[in-house]
Amino acid sequence: MSFARLQEKIDELQNPTVVGLDPDLAHIPEAILEKYYKEHGETLEAASLAVTEFNFGLIDVLYEIVPAVKPQSAFYEALGPFGAVSLQKTCEYAKKKGMYVILDGKRNDIGSTAAAYSTAYLGATKVGSKECIAYNTDALTVNAYLGSDGIKPFIENAVKYEKAIFALVKTSNPSAGELQDKLIGQGGQGDGSPCPTEEPSPCSRGTVPLSSEEPSPYLPLYTMVGDLMEEISKNTIDINGYTCVGAVVGATYPEEAEFLRERLKHTFFLVPGYGAQGGSAESAAKSFDKNKKGAIVNSSRAIIAAWKKHGGDYETAAREEALRMRDELRKALKY
Amino acid sequence: MSFARLQEKIDELQNPTVVGLDPDLAHIPEAILEKYYKEHGETLEAASLAVTEFNFGLIDVLYEIVPAVKPQSAFYEALGPFGAVSLQKTCEYAKKKGMYVILDGKRNDIGSTAAAYSTAYLGATKVGSKECIAYNTDALTVNAYLGSDGIKPFIENAVKYEKAIFALVKTSNPSAGELQDKLIGQGGQGDGSPCPTEEPSPCSRGTVPLSSEEPSPYLPLYTMVGDLMEEISKNTIDINGYTCVGAVVGATYPEEAEFLRERLKHTFFLVPGYGAQGGSAESAAKSFDKNKKGAIVNSSRAIIAAWKKHGGDYETAAREEALRMRDELRKALKY
Repeated sequence: MSFARLQEKIDELQNPTVVGLDPDLAHIPEAILEKYYKEHGETLEAASLAVTEFNFGLIDVLYEIVPAVKPQSAFYEALGPFGAVSLQKTCEYAKKKGMYVILDGKRNDIGSTAAAYSTAYLGATKVGSKECIAYNTDALTVNAYLGSDGIKPFIENAVKYEKAIFALVKTSNPSAGELQDKLIGQGGQGDGSPCPTEEPSPCSRGTVPLSSEEPSPYLPLYTMVGDLMEEISKNTIDINGYTCVGAVVGATYPEEAEFLRERLKHTFFLVPGYGAQGGSAESAAKSFDKNKKGAIVNSSRAIIAAWKKHGGDYETAAREEALRMRDELRKALKY
Repeated sequence: MSFARLQEKIDELQNPTVVGLDPDLAHIPEAILEKYYKEHGETLEAASLAVTEFNFGLIDVLYEIVPAVKPQSAFYEALGPFGAVSLQKTCEYAKKKGMYVILDGKRNDIGSTAAAYSTAYLGATKVGSKECIAYNTDALTVNAYLGSDGIKPFIENAVKYEKAIFALVKTSNPSAGELQDKLIGQGGQGDGSPCPTEEPSPCSRGTVPLSSEEPSPYLPLYTMVGDLMEEISKNTIDINGYTCVGAVVGATYPEEAEFLRERLKHTFFLVPGYGAQGGSAESAAKSFDKNKKGAIVNSSRAIIAAWKKHGGDYETAAREEALRMRDELRKALKY
């Protein structure tokens, strides 16, 4: 049932978008910052209080049109423990308003440590006889470089608490391909099977020919990550056909997204890279299935800092940009 | 100068070990927990205060014999914002006692987000006209799946503030090889160059034959990650010959460690997997250079929860286990 709640919310609002709450202090109007600086000095406490107010304001104008928010953990961590309070309050407030909360933390570790991350964001921490919730989120982004050991503890809590994770598969950044696009022989030489002897044909961005009719003996690393994630979560398929392990697939690589959408039929996609990073609505649309489901597109700066570009108060500017994005995606998806 | 401070501290104490502060509540003596439960109830606040007391006790008995501590972020995150306070205080206290602090957070992201993580742990956050330190650490573990975009912001702060990072290369866990051992043709087909046509010879754990005299046309992914990290940090070599980007190389894969040690001459290794995970002192020793430098070996549970195995108070048990580990490594390294 992992992504079913998210899909339901998307369907209700007819809007497959998530707003990234990445509160770089440069995105926050000076008046909000100054108010707290006056009270608490130029401190991490003041900055954190400003972030909380800024986020609440955004959530207030967005929750009726946008199904989900995605706080980016790094910006809260940069504010120290006060930032952790702001993150916790932001998650709580978004959930109170009915939004689906995806924490973008790209966490990864093994064994009891992966279990601790899973507890922190998807489960509850046992304190004596009590179960205490550290951060109340619905989903968490994770990094799968450590293999299935590092993912299974998240699947356990996802199943138990109806939560979900998104593993990094093909990220949106320019250097994504340095490792993610490396070609590996199918069958995986890791098991001693021979490496294929045919050369891969050249293709844009150095990946396998995605539209080839003959299956290539080579696959890029990102595909193997996607395959592995779908395989280890195959027992968790929800009513829409999606497991509790989603994939991050950048809107900046539409060909790869199309290839992955076709291949990973049970994987829900989180699509960064729309807008500020150069991905278009048409590119982002490649990540949706034929029923226009199975994906959600993120925008952060373009929405939360829209006031810097378009003027006016930050809430109105954010709402207008969120509506514009919604309408653009509706059009691209032929809603 | 990144790892020079750490090496100096290791040389001073003749002890290349780091103690992992992974405060699973199950590792903390009941008496400490109960004291705070009485005061604050069974809450995350009480648990966090207990963790802080536990850590301070460990640091007090360890700082004269062990050069470094490695708090594992997950366990603090599982305690919510109070856990963040405990982490911050633990880092401060360890530094006050002269220890080198490696935060094990395995952080990863791109652009301004990677910069925010870098700011949080290696740099300072600009708040108005002030520079505020969120968490005062010396080094941070990172994950390189996103490529060089995700690493460069850390290198910037490492150089500016004499800090360092350790990128995950070959991790210590059983499923590490699922992705990390995948074989990739040298020259990188990502650039359109042909894939090598010879088959790789079989070898233990599915990697390339590490002792082969003929260079193999294939390299496992972890080697490419290691190569990439050394390449992008090559301008930061310190007086001992090490760049500011180290590598995590598990003690559970000694053959691979030996191969990597030979190959990555300018990379400082952080070696997990000793003790509880099955790595021996002899295995861990493979990660050191011929001058017995360039690596540090971690032990977490075996030291901080030694009281559960050996009885007595937790501080004495931890100190005795730390001395045992030190002596075992000194012997293996022929100090």
